[in-house]
Amino acid sequence: LTVYLLDLLGVFVFALSGALAADRRRMDLFGFVVIALLPALGGGTFRDIIIDAPVFWLTDLTYLLMCLTAAVLTFITANAIHRAGQWLLWADAAGLSLFCVLGAEKTLALGHDPAIAVIMGVMTAVVGGIVRDVVCNEIPLILRQDVYATAAFAGAVSYVALVALQTDSGIAIWIGAAVCFTVRAAAIRWKLSLPRRGGPPPDQSGP
Amino acid sequence: LTVYLLDLLGVFVFALSGALAADRRRMDLFGFVVIALLPALGGGTFRDIIIDAPVFWLTDLTYLLMCLTAAVLTFITANAIHRAGQWLLWADAAGLSLFCVLGAEKTLALGHDPAIAVIMGVMTAVVGGIVRDVVCNEIPLILRQDVYATAAFAGAVSYVALVALQTDSGIAIWIGAAVCFTVRAAAIRWKLSLPRRGGPPPDQSGP
Amino acid sequence: LTVYLLDLLGVFVFALSGALAADRRRMDLFGFVVIALLPALGGGTFRDIIIDAPVFWLTDLTYLLMCLTAAVLTFITANAIHRAGQWLLWADAAGLSLFCVLGAEKTLALGHDPAIAVIMGVMTAVVGGIVRDVVCNEIPLILRQDVYATAAFAGAVSYVALVALQTDSGIAIWIGAAVCFTVRAAAIRWKLSLPRRGGPPPDQSGP
Repeated sequence: LTVYLLDLLGVFVFALSGALAADRRRMDLFGFVVIALLPALGGGTFRDIIIDAPVFWLTDLTYLLMCLTAAVLTFITANAIHRAGQWLLWADAAGLSLFCVLGAEKTLALGHDPAIAVIMGVMTAVVGGIVRDVVCNEIPLILRQDVYATAAFAGAVSYVALVALQTDSGIAIWIGAAVCFTVRAAAIRWKLSLPRRGGPPPDQSGP
Repeated sequence: LTVYLLDLLGVFVFALSGALAADRRRMDLFGFVVIALLPALGGGTFRDIIIDAPVFWLTDLTYLLMCLTAAVLTFITANAIHRAGQWLLWADAAGLSLFCVLGAEKTLALGHDPAIAVIMGVMTAVVGGIVRDVVCNEIPLILRQDVYATAAFAGAVSYVALVALQTDSGIAIWIGAAVCFTVRAAAIRWKLSLPRRGGPPPDQSGP
Repeated sequence: LTVYLLDLLGVFVFALSGALAADRRRMDLFGFVVIALLPALGGGTFRDIIIDAPVFWLTDLTYLLMCLTAAVLTFITANAIHRAGQWLLWADAAGLSLFCVLGAEKTLALGHDPAIAVIMGVMTAVVGGIVRDVVCNEIPLILRQDVYATAAFAGAVSYVALVALQTDSGIAIWIGAAVCFTVRAAAIRWKLSLPRRGGPPPDQSGP
């Protein structure tokens, strides 16, 4: 049950981030709903298709309702949300933390290899945001903000490792999510990035 | 049978719209075929994957044949088609109207919830065009032309509501398609759009 | 067994091409891994989802290991690889040749129509690269380099035709791959392109 509530929370928070992206482009209400759905449901849909599980929002309309609520709420109050400043960044970090462990948890529960569970955890967390950015014709956040997928990776690995060590899954979820959030928070706070190869600044004009 | 013929017509019309997009970019014949396939088969493929039905064009090669015909026809006669002016916009509206009800119909027939049927109707109608635009590196039409997904939504809702009211499915398809076409036609004719939030014009430069 | 080794080789080569794309954008190590996965596994994943086969890398972690190796190798030695000049173009041609026949082979083996096998061969070969380019916000290679999908098409058709003529599948794979590689090599060497319709140069600014 707790897992279910966390999942709903993650969907809500990611839908909010999508709706705010729609707001930046001054889209209409329908656009808010569509762009809110992409990050909120995209990653989990992708995961379920790959591991051949029934797509999670087909049988439980609550997920769609959360997205709709987030979209309408943002449509009405976006100015207030924007004034809250860094709010979106932290909400996004919370969604990332929840999705990476919950994606790994579902994949493990279906009997897949731990390595696959880690990959699916990362994908659940980042694919939706990639699709949102691609549809909005932006270079995905994951290519711009360095320690993003890495944080999801740390969270998913922690969860899978703890479960392998016989930790109770409910506790492992919290620890995994906390690891991901801490890594992401540190990256936001101190603008960390992974080592890069030396050389000139990124070539934005393509190959 | 009528549903089948309408489905083929929708595929043909959307393939035409894809091939014309390829023509605008002066692609070669192979590009015409590839870009024609995306809007014509993309939405339905996505729907079938999500609801875990066999992908519709795997077992019936007629769909691929329609796309091929549309691509070759456009390759030969594109100048004539361009001279026909607004033609593409109306063909696209017809495809939109057919796909939104047929997508909802197939989803309902597989026993899914009416709300899911509406969403799948909209997705069948708009996802192919989004993929076409994303591959061509354009901001999708759906983000630029306001009452587009909304028209598909109106059509799918009408169809699902009529079926819930025990209307014959064949009749409901025509009415649903007519509702979608009317909404889209009104939007084209009077350049309607959904209410937007006030503020400066859209920020094209990203977040 | 040979098919399996060729498949791994194709994955490795495509992962290399993805990692080099990540290098051009000065991404961090995690970006290298993510962008390496897209072309290497994207096409086959898409094929398996469409024909409803289990996704090939879920049950055999060797594929993921190849991608990881290619990404790390490129991260360490990318300057050397870049100095090798045209190397990437030929590696990409080899990957294209392997994937188009192996995609067709798998689809045929599952009992699908030869026409479907050809399409799936082409998709296995080109979809991963399209996704890589779309995520990197570039216009896909397939829209810029003309005889690319066409080469994959030639290879897949050759393979399917030879199998239909009762040729041993192992031999048909080599001939099909050779046909694809020859077509692609000729296109690279003499900058061939399919016939285009006359008119002004491509409009890069959208419709």
